[in-house]
Amino acid sequence: MKRSLLVQQINNKKSFLCVGLDTDLEKVPDYFRSRPNGIVEFNKQIIDATKDYCVSYKINTAFYESMGARGWDAMEETCSYIPETHFKIADAKRADIGNTSSYYAKAFFEKLNFDAITVAPYMGEDSIRPFLEYENKWTIMLGLTSNQGAQDFELLKLQNGLLLYERVLETVSKWGSDQNLMFVVGATQASELANIRKIIPNHFLLVPGVGAQGGSLLEVATYGMNPDIGLLVNASRAIIYADNGADFASKAQQVALEYQNEMKQFFR
Amino acid sequence: MKRSLLVQQINNKKSFLCVGLDTDLEKVPDYFRSRPNGIVEFNKQIIDATKDYCVSYKINTAFYESMGARGWDAMEETCSYIPETHFKIADAKRADIGNTSSYYAKAFFEKLNFDAITVAPYMGEDSIRPFLEYENKWTIMLGLTSNQGAQDFELLKLQNGLLLYERVLETVSKWGSDQNLMFVVGATQASELANIRKIIPNHFLLVPGVGAQGGSLLEVATYGMNPDIGLLVNASRAIIYADNGADFASKAQQVALEYQNEMKQFFR
Repeated sequence: MKRSLLVQQINNKKSFLCVGLDTDLEKVPDYFRSRPNGIVEFNKQIIDATKDYCVSYKINTAFYESMGARGWDAMEETCSYIPETHFKIADAKRADIGNTSSYYAKAFFEKLNFDAITVAPYMGEDSIRPFLEYENKWTIMLGLTSNQGAQDFELLKLQNGLLLYERVLETVSKWGSDQNLMFVVGATQASELANIRKIIPNHFLLVPGVGAQGGSLLEVATYGMNPDIGLLVNASRAIIYADNGADFASKAQQVALEYQNEMKQFFR
Repeated sequence: MKRSLLVQQINNKKSFLCVGLDTDLEKVPDYFRSRPNGIVEFNKQIIDATKDYCVSYKINTAFYESMGARGWDAMEETCSYIPETHFKIADAKRADIGNTSSYYAKAFFEKLNFDAITVAPYMGEDSIRPFLEYENKWTIMLGLTSNQGAQDFELLKLQNGLLLYERVLETVSKWGSDQNLMFVVGATQASELANIRKIIPNHFLLVPGVGAQGGSLLEVATYGMNPDIGLLVNASRAIIYADNGADFASKAQQVALEYQNEMKQFFR
């Protein structure tokens, strides 16, 4: 998906919501647990209920891989059900030596037809290059994550005075452009967003951590927005597990609508 | 697998060879390409031919994921064919926030029954903790990798004078012990091995990059060995694609034997 199309979707819907389909068979309503294709049926109902209020869906591969080949099938089927209008993210946090990364790119961009994949920076440029070579596909690099462990390495100070994550933003942003690269910045790191926008003013940011992890949408929007909005704010558990009963889908819809209602105030 | 058992296997065989099953249907002999379960059939022949000369097999998930759910099935079937005596590594380079990493741990340690998984350090301790909680399972952290991109971040100098990868070794080694943690050090980085052994003298190192990537086994053994040998040296393409014809398996066996012959000189 081209950036211009993503920005158009965001402005049309006055929403920059991404719904995270982190579906765990242990946490969905009982009805789905006994169904042979329960995960996909659940996801389809969530997609139908939320698609008018979000512009993107994010599938975290861990939840599907924990079910083996059947989970991989469910991921494939879910991905192909997401409307073409919505930006499809594989939250996979991959990266390997170049030859190997090209197989990951094939898996997620060709086989599964995602628009984007999240990647990790540690192994450097040649581990990311194969993803960047696909036209109209996006590479979303980990920047500053929402978890406690961000302090272990991401916030280390380098000899030149930069923090490691700042160096990652600076360096990686030169490997591509704001037309094929985004960065992950956790919503719990809102205080750093003003600083991050000095380094990468134009890139889109994927922002997890609003909701279950405690981040504030108002803070994220205040410090993180750019003229194209430039944000995809993800909520997973807060939406898909809004209710555990028969009306889980309408409750999910209600929560997605609440997010969208809060988001629309930031549009002129 | 317990460390004592791994060390026993290594001493019995006078080998610390790990065979990388990075199997690509485009690169195997023609015969397998048209078979519905060709990847698994190829892998089984490679395993039968090499198992007497190696102590470990490593499956890089990228190659299997590029084939979709069918690939995931092939990974499962291959993994269950590897003898119990051999140390089974999922080269997956995963890590995510703690809740999510626990699903990866379930996928690779429970569903697929690997002995070990490779992980990436960027997101810090809580992203790795779920892997370390499994008894007799191993977490193999990226340390200093064999690719060009290692220079981008791994070799950055920190304010306290350490290189980033040195800090990763120092910090991560405290999260577990030499009974459940190993580190990836590329064979092309042999000059750094003496230094690495000062930081983590007792841990096993997984060493890719001998063969196709140009690393030297003699250098790796000279600078990297410890009293338990402490090395798993991986060769993938050099073994599994040793020949493209009908006798690919005997050629693979021959190359594995050559590695083992070179390795046995390092045993007393």
